[in-house]
Amino acid sequence: MRMYDLISKKRNGGALNKEEMTHLIEGYVKGEIPDYQMSAFLMAVYFQGMTKEETAIMTDLVARSGDVVDLSPIEGIKVDKHSTGGVGDKTTLIVAPLAAACGVKVAKMSGRGLGHTGGTVDKLESIPGMRVSIEREEFFEIVKKTGICVIGQSGNLTPADKKLYALRDVTATVESIPLIAVSIMGKKLAAGSDCILLDVKTGSGAFMNSVEDSLALAQEMVSIGESAGKKTVALITNMDIPLGNNIGNSLEVIEAVETLKNRGPEDLTNVCLELAANMLYLAGQGDMETCYGKVKKALESGAALQKFIEMVEAQGGDSSVIKDISKFEKASVVKEIISPYDGYITFMDTKECGIASCILGAGRETKEDSIDYSAGIVLKKKTGDRIEKGDVLAVMYGNKEEKMLPAEEQFLKALKVEGNKPETQKLIYARVTGDAVEWK
Amino acid sequence: MRMYDLISKKRNGGALNKEEMTHLIEGYVKGEIPDYQMSAFLMAVYFQGMTKEETAIMTDLVARSGDVVDLSPIEGIKVDKHSTGGVGDKTTLIVAPLAAACGVKVAKMSGRGLGHTGGTVDKLESIPGMRVSIEREEFFEIVKKTGICVIGQSGNLTPADKKLYALRDVTATVESIPLIAVSIMGKKLAAGSDCILLDVKTGSGAFMNSVEDSLALAQEMVSIGESAGKKTVALITNMDIPLGNNIGNSLEVIEAVETLKNRGPEDLTNVCLELAANMLYLAGQGDMETCYGKVKKALESGAALQKFIEMVEAQGGDSSVIKDISKFEKASVVKEIISPYDGYITFMDTKECGIASCILGAGRETKEDSIDYSAGIVLKKKTGDRIEKGDVLAVMYGNKEEKMLPAEEQFLKALKVEGNKPETQKLIYARVTGDAVEWK
Repeated sequence: MRMYDLISKKRNGGALNKEEMTHLIEGYVKGEIPDYQMSAFLMAVYFQGMTKEETAIMTDLVARSGDVVDLSPIEGIKVDKHSTGGVGDKTTLIVAPLAAACGVKVAKMSGRGLGHTGGTVDKLESIPGMRVSIEREEFFEIVKKTGICVIGQSGNLTPADKKLYALRDVTATVESIPLIAVSIMGKKLAAGSDCILLDVKTGSGAFMNSVEDSLALAQEMVSIGESAGKKTVALITNMDIPLGNNIGNSLEVIEAVETLKNRGPEDLTNVCLELAANMLYLAGQGDMETCYGKVKKALESGAALQKFIEMVEAQGGDSSVIKDISKFEKASVVKEIISPYDGYITFMDTKECGIASCILGAGRETKEDSIDYSAGIVLKKKTGDRIEKGDVLAVMYGNKEEKMLPAEEQFLKALKVEGNKPETQKLIYARVTGDAVEWK
Repeated sequence: MRMYDLISKKRNGGALNKEEMTHLIEGYVKGEIPDYQMSAFLMAVYFQGMTKEETAIMTDLVARSGDVVDLSPIEGIKVDKHSTGGVGDKTTLIVAPLAAACGVKVAKMSGRGLGHTGGTVDKLESIPGMRVSIEREEFFEIVKKTGICVIGQSGNLTPADKKLYALRDVTATVESIPLIAVSIMGKKLAAGSDCILLDVKTGSGAFMNSVEDSLALAQEMVSIGESAGKKTVALITNMDIPLGNNIGNSLEVIEAVETLKNRGPEDLTNVCLELAANMLYLAGQGDMETCYGKVKKALESGAALQKFIEMVEAQGGDSSVIKDISKFEKASVVKEIISPYDGYITFMDTKECGIASCILGAGRETKEDSIDYSAGIVLKKKTGDRIEKGDVLAVMYGNKEEKMLPAEEQFLKALKVEGNKPETQKLIYARVTGDAVEWK
């Protein structure tokens, strides 16, 4: 089999069979297929796409290119949850304890933040003492004992994806829906859970800007999951506005704790209940109404908060900051952003809001950058709100006085203020299962 | 400037400006841009094409990436001629002397054969003593003295094209009309003639199988030539049937000599007169009718044959074989292919006929293979001819008995025999100038 013929086949709109795809992925990982042939192939995929069968085969190969976690020693149904990334997206911190409090097993590996989006692992690390690098054996023990553990990626997971992604990143072949789906689902399959809940973010703060693209990605991923024998559901949720009010690592943990105490912002609470209910649904705990009732009860009873505290303690974290959020380390510089406008906020460019928070120190531009856990932004006004000159729009937190002005300018640039109140946006657009798309 | 952005721009259907194209080509030649980025760019070009302006800029950069031949020391108008390659295409051997006999200066660098197509340089080398590796100074002297010299590529011509072509060859990005045009025209511009005549072959024996693609390529190349200030004309000619009857190196020289003696096959003679007339036209020797009259006279008077003999002698060749073709070295094995069919030949897959000739030893599969100059096929019947069982279809020449049967099988596979006489095909489809397409 010649790589030339595989490129040519894809270029001409053909579909690779299992044998061909195996030659492609295994040959590339082994270094037998050079980067210059793979990048031509990937660009051909950008234009010609891949069939559902191709993406399923490719994902399976990517998943099996390295370690595959065997979660079978943990009893019960393990449900994974993945977000395509956004600004102020602290849902895992709330959803995972909610689901675990209802008996779902959550043995989850999360990522770090890069660019304008944050990462769950970074947020967890803002809790003093919290360990996110935990060996397989202890990881399993914690899940067995508490039903929940969230750590960083460990072991040699999906080396094929790492190599492919690095190449896509420099050859303008990242923006291909089947390739994105393969990359995400390859990691999910390797992580070993029985079921997968996908939170596909859409809008200005998300990787996918349009609902159409988000739907296509969601369907592609659900199809891959189902092909691999994993029950999979995707929600398409709004990231055209930051989720909740807090952006930044410890600020987001604080908001997550407030939400687990059932006094969080309405948008965040509602999305989290919906996500957690879907995890219960995937675990076979009944129809959506039943599952929603269970997670709502777990929130209201404090069981979810208790589960979060258990998790923090099991992972070596200081739970006293959870019980009393005022104990979190504080930023040394705090500054309000005052409105220069009268009118209604009709749009917040969410990516730009994320970048403003990064300027304050909350994010990293390259993988090597370090993070200021206390830095970030707390929104006081959001899309749809009436504002007047002199109103506090947001509060900035950081430790570098000189970053305040650039961050403020960046933030104000993200806002669109107009005379009329905009229509209220949906929080959740659709729920995608293997059988149907249910529009909300 | 980042290569990533150039790939992304092309991928999204944009056009690179001069500065960007310069960064691309110069950076690639210097090794600053890696193959894996260039191959992704080339695949994006395959799908998105290039504007006329982009191809003109890219061709200029390719032409100037190495030596550019300055033919100005040679007086008169220098006209180059290029064929996109075919089977039995010995036109240069006839057309160049015809044009030179009429006063056009022909200082031409030709290529070697590869795959099913032959190369002029190989054909010339089948003449005993003939030198095709000639230093610049002597090359100029011969053209000044005789008006004609045909040699192999020398010097460091278009290194950018060599590097790009090697990459395209392994990444399935050869079949892009603008990239083909850039590659051909880059070499033509570097070769330094004042005007360029292009013979774009079309059909089963050509690189371009359809008249539409051939027209697109012709127009692209003429546009590039004119942009570079070189008068350029392209003819689109038939390669759905071998040109003339002889395929193979010395066999083709023999047929060319016969044609220069005005007793060659009609198709070959007519195409050569048309091509040569266009070279005169490009050199400003009058309208097409006048030019055609001049070359016809040069053929009939024996002036063109004389010019060919002069050229052979100037390049060290033994002209006695030209004067008496029976002196050419003979193949040791000669075998007739007898018709197993009754009917009309309605189609000859011309590439397959070329491959049959290669099996006998006339061609090379890789650049390192050596050639048997006396090997090849002489056709006795061609498309449109009535054949009966027992008729001689062709005669095979070679020096390896064991190659005769595979070559015969290959040849017979190329024929389609049916009950009715097919329509006569056109020899020349169209003439393309900067202003117009003139259909024949």
